Amino acid sequence: MASTPSSRPSPEHIFATLNARQQTAALKTAIELDLFSVIDEGNHRCREIAKRLNASDRGVRILCDFLTVLGFLRKEDERYSLNEDAALFLSKRSPHYMGTIAEFLTDKQHHENLAHLADAVRRGGTTTGRGNNLEPNDRLWVSFARSMAPLTVPTAIYIAQLVGAPELGAIRVLDIAAGHGMYGITIAQQNPKAQITAVDWPAVLEVAKENAAKAGVALRYTARAGSAFEAELGDSYDLVLLTNIFHHFDKETCVQLMRRAHQALKPDGRAVTLEFVPNEDRVSPPREAAFSLLMLVGTDAGDAYTFSEYKAMFQEAGFADTTIHRIPGMPQEVLLSQKS
Amino acid sequence: MASTPSSRPSPEHIFATLNARQQTAALKTAIELDLFSVIDEGNHRCREIAKRLNASDRGVRILCDFLTVLGFLRKEDERYSLNEDAALFLSKRSPHYMGTIAEFLTDKQHHENLAHLADAVRRGGTTTGRGNNLEPNDRLWVSFARSMAPLTVPTAIYIAQLVGAPELGAIRVLDIAAGHGMYGITIAQQNPKAQITAVDWPAVLEVAKENAAKAGVALRYTARAGSAFEAELGDSYDLVLLTNIFHHFDKETCVQLMRRAHQALKPDGRAVTLEFVPNEDRVSPPREAAFSLLMLVGTDAGDAYTFSEYKAMFQEAGFADTTIHRIPGMPQEVLLSQKS
Repeated sequence: MASTPSSRPSPEHIFATLNARQQTAALKTAIELDLFSVIDEGNHRCREIAKRLNASDRGVRILCDFLTVLGFLRKEDERYSLNEDAALFLSKRSPHYMGTIAEFLTDKQHHENLAHLADAVRRGGTTTGRGNNLEPNDRLWVSFARSMAPLTVPTAIYIAQLVGAPELGAIRVLDIAAGHGMYGITIAQQNPKAQITAVDWPAVLEVAKENAAKAGVALRYTARAGSAFEAELGDSYDLVLLTNIFHHFDKETCVQLMRRAHQALKPDGRAVTLEFVPNEDRVSPPREAAFSLLMLVGTDAGDAYTFSEYKAMFQEAGFADTTIHRIPGMPQEVLLSQKS
Repeated sequence: MASTPSSRPSPEHIFATLNARQQTAALKTAIELDLFSVIDEGNHRCREIAKRLNASDRGVRILCDFLTVLGFLRKEDERYSLNEDAALFLSKRSPHYMGTIAEFLTDKQHHENLAHLADAVRRGGTTTGRGNNLEPNDRLWVSFARSMAPLTVPTAIYIAQLVGAPELGAIRVLDIAAGHGMYGITIAQQNPKAQITAVDWPAVLEVAKENAAKAGVALRYTARAGSAFEAELGDSYDLVLLTNIFHHFDKETCVQLMRRAHQALKPDGRAVTLEFVPNEDRVSPPREAAFSLLMLVGTDAGDAYTFSEYKAMFQEAGFADTTIHRIPGMPQEVLLSQKS
């Protein structure tokens, strides 16, 4: 989280927190308007930016000032420029552009869920009726697959290196609930003999297939449409990827899925989990710990499980050992679970 | 603002900002559930708190962990306790309780406005049709008057001291757009000979009259229902209070209201303005600067004006001199304008 309490009692932090949704709205809007690219193109004065955006001077000035307060822009002599984060991640001129993540992170479904937080606290789970996440939800997960893909690059490279993908030879990789497919695709890019099988709902798989084609690995990419819990997965895989899936379910359902992964692996195969794994205190690190709230409002019984919880679940599913690996600079962790 | 950019390029600050609305939802919900009072009563473990709130263990655990991440709670050995801000301002056992401010700050009207920020940037003003703020909006302003009153105490005392209320003898004070009325009421409390006249829409004035009665100054409190721009204000006042009103209007309308205040004052009278007054750069201090965004989405042409802008407007309206006074620990400023 970006918030820090002030050092002496003051209503300041309470105010800032109750108003925090303004920050979401301002950044989402700036990305939608493509304001950062417009500034990066050399438009620095309010009037120039407004003209390029076909917007009002007043609106642009107020939005740019707000983004300066938030630290995404700098303002000097009435000229706005991008700070490092904005230049690297929010201008379309950058190869690392990730403005698309705003679409999923600020999706109206999350807003609807958060609006019923009090009910979710009382009930102990979502009140929006989409809670079990075992049925296709094409709109939301296609949005996820399309919008979050740019963010995955550093993580996907980290995972490919961690498992030693380039040196593994002719491996078979199963990507369960593949979404954008980038984790499997990156392994295929690093290892020209790797064969990837991706499982997801049909509409979401289309996004993964597009990404595989763009990455030049389509010939080694097989798509199997269906639920992670019911699809025919095949067997004798070297690696099974389980990225951002367990947090949607209760422990029993997680173990059930781990068992399917266990069954699909070769005797010396490994399951690779990507997750928000908070420390055992559940209140640190901030981003991992905070993730639970979204699972409270959006699922029946999902959670950000701790490492000891994951270890116990993988053990129950038959895995011999699980280790944790923190990804530098990213808010998620990788778990490696050895079948034997 | 509570957000600070990280020191090296990372998507962390972008993530935190796009997710910031979760902070609003969590604190609003905790206040609604009265979670802070329940902990302050001695319920520290998840199960105890859940039982008292008639809520689920899982929901309470996740909400409390999130509030710990935000810094409102501490968690030690699975026991939650209040931090200083929460104990002082968010427990109903504290005389400084201000949880009511959540109602106005998170009002659905603001959400609706923020949801149309992109349109507001293009147009240069609100797109919700309530923009001129010259018509009564009972629901919103009664909510403001009722919910924001507790927050006014330190500011109201500061203003009463700044104008030297206790030593002024039999003064007459006009409180324009009085709202909760607390600024005038506090002067009446500090000066037993002060007579207060409050102007606001009828439904809002009821709140001010209630507060005057509670404060024991009802006999010296006169209410005049109507618009700040049209009501008969009377004349020969020593002080005219203009608190949180100018930010709703364009400069021309502000000057018009200043002229009415000028006319209502004695020759040596003073206008007292309470406002969000950012520095001339318009991007500091953070809270004052950020306030403009709400005016962009919620008004036709309102703004957080700078001191030089206020000085010029008061001069145009006939005032001799205006000085600025920063309120220690509060995000607003007081302007004193001498009629002559």
